[in-house]
Amino acid sequence: MKLLRVGAPGEERPAVRTDDGRLLDLSSVTRDIDGDFLASGGVDRARAAVVAGGLPELDTDGLRIGAPLVRPGKIICVGLNYRDHAAETGAAIPPRPVVFMKDPGTVVGPYDEVLIPRGSVKTDWEVELAVVIGRRARYLDGPEAARAVIAGYAISHDVSEREFQLEYSPQWDLGKSCETFNPLGPWLVTADEVGDPQDLGLHLSVNGVKRQDGRTGDMIFPVDHIVSYLSQYMVLEPGDVINTGTPAGVALGLPGTPFLRPGDTVELSVDGLGSQRQTFTQA
Amino acid sequence: MKLLRVGAPGEERPAVRTDDGRLLDLSSVTRDIDGDFLASGGVDRARAAVVAGGLPELDTDGLRIGAPLVRPGKIICVGLNYRDHAAETGAAIPPRPVVFMKDPGTVVGPYDEVLIPRGSVKTDWEVELAVVIGRRARYLDGPEAARAVIAGYAISHDVSEREFQLEYSPQWDLGKSCETFNPLGPWLVTADEVGDPQDLGLHLSVNGVKRQDGRTGDMIFPVDHIVSYLSQYMVLEPGDVINTGTPAGVALGLPGTPFLRPGDTVELSVDGLGSQRQTFTQA
Repeated sequence: MKLLRVGAPGEERPAVRTDDGRLLDLSSVTRDIDGDFLASGGVDRARAAVVAGGLPELDTDGLRIGAPLVRPGKIICVGLNYRDHAAETGAAIPPRPVVFMKDPGTVVGPYDEVLIPRGSVKTDWEVELAVVIGRRARYLDGPEAARAVIAGYAISHDVSEREFQLEYSPQWDLGKSCETFNPLGPWLVTADEVGDPQDLGLHLSVNGVKRQDGRTGDMIFPVDHIVSYLSQYMVLEPGDVINTGTPAGVALGLPGTPFLRPGDTVELSVDGLGSQRQTFTQA
Repeated sequence: MKLLRVGAPGEERPAVRTDDGRLLDLSSVTRDIDGDFLASGGVDRARAAVVAGGLPELDTDGLRIGAPLVRPGKIICVGLNYRDHAAETGAAIPPRPVVFMKDPGTVVGPYDEVLIPRGSVKTDWEVELAVVIGRRARYLDGPEAARAVIAGYAISHDVSEREFQLEYSPQWDLGKSCETFNPLGPWLVTADEVGDPQDLGLHLSVNGVKRQDGRTGDMIFPVDHIVSYLSQYMVLEPGDVINTGTPAGVALGLPGTPFLRPGDTVELSVDGLGSQRQTFTQA
């Protein structure tokens, strides 16, 4: 099932996207799509309501699509998780997941404007597979226990400012947490519909030029390993988001380092998870 | 004014501590102490209610004190912000604030149990001055604009696992985000009552042995600089917390590196902000 939130920023209502592309209003099932909804069997309730019929269809004309869940409790990121991306940034293959965080307030909708921070000359793109946690996870028994706590997946754009991230201090969070730096969605696709999360293509283009074209099968640490690993060190809560890393092709690793400029448009897609499109503007 | 939250975990109610040590129930003024309360003039409303009289007094017998505000939207930490602590860890004096993040879910009350993570052999203490944001801050005009967005201050215990923080990857967040790793409180002391945040003593002892004894005047980057600096790179929201760094005396820098063991008790205080006491237990 594809869950989403539609409407003006801060006033989104929950919806389901049907296989034939219609949007059904989920407001009668839940007030919003958040950790409580995911942890309390909300996906099953939504599915039952769709099967029962009677959910009102939404007029999609001019309708904004927001992020598919309310502000996460935390966004955890795994860095350098594709061999080709580690290589292009000059980093060694990490022996353990490289874990950092991003301000959860950076989440915006998949087609919203993204702001280039004031003073930035190195704003960069990163298409990623986002994992959305559906159940509390603490000291999981191993990777095979991970699937039970994953609600689903979404496209995440882990926008990054490389000067703030890499040159201002050895800690990356500063350059990952700028305003609007985490477009998410359009949909939260439930895990059952995604199938194998390690068999998805990720694609990104800038102004129509293809820049990233990777596969989740090339992750150094696959999704189940990441979820299990993180649960040994922190508590994963329903509604938390994990950005699982980006494949090669970011501006930082390209000849001429073509960082983003105001007016640039970035398009992202992940197989089965839809697509995003953002225009960048000066903050 | 000293604001706090009392009651069982997840069921705390807001309260004010009077100068003579009584606790007054603030439930008639606000449902909770959170970003909305701080941003909407809640402190002034609470003050007026205290002056007007009539707030019921709470029976403090056996009453748990929780963190003085609900789960923050984010916890931002400034690392190596005291010269003596940078020196004891073998780090250079940083030219800019070293910024990392902590899972906001780590916040617990000032007297709650703290868990030593499974597999941990390097759990460490850090007494810090926490800044609580009261108004949205984005691209502040400079340090002199910082005071207007600070609601107040609290003691923060930035508990850290040094192996997870320093040896598992170059990114620190993993070793800072373990369950229960951020005792906060007992009070949120409003900025007007604290006066100069750069003139406070910070103290920490372990099992009665004094370990940290610093002054906020020794910060490399003072509070106003930190708030203004961060606002250039991310949006600070009401209810966000900034941990401003710890002075020398952590286990990592002491002879024999006496990291915390189950049963150890840590006591912390900051001038004017009260005191904390936690017993550490195995997760």
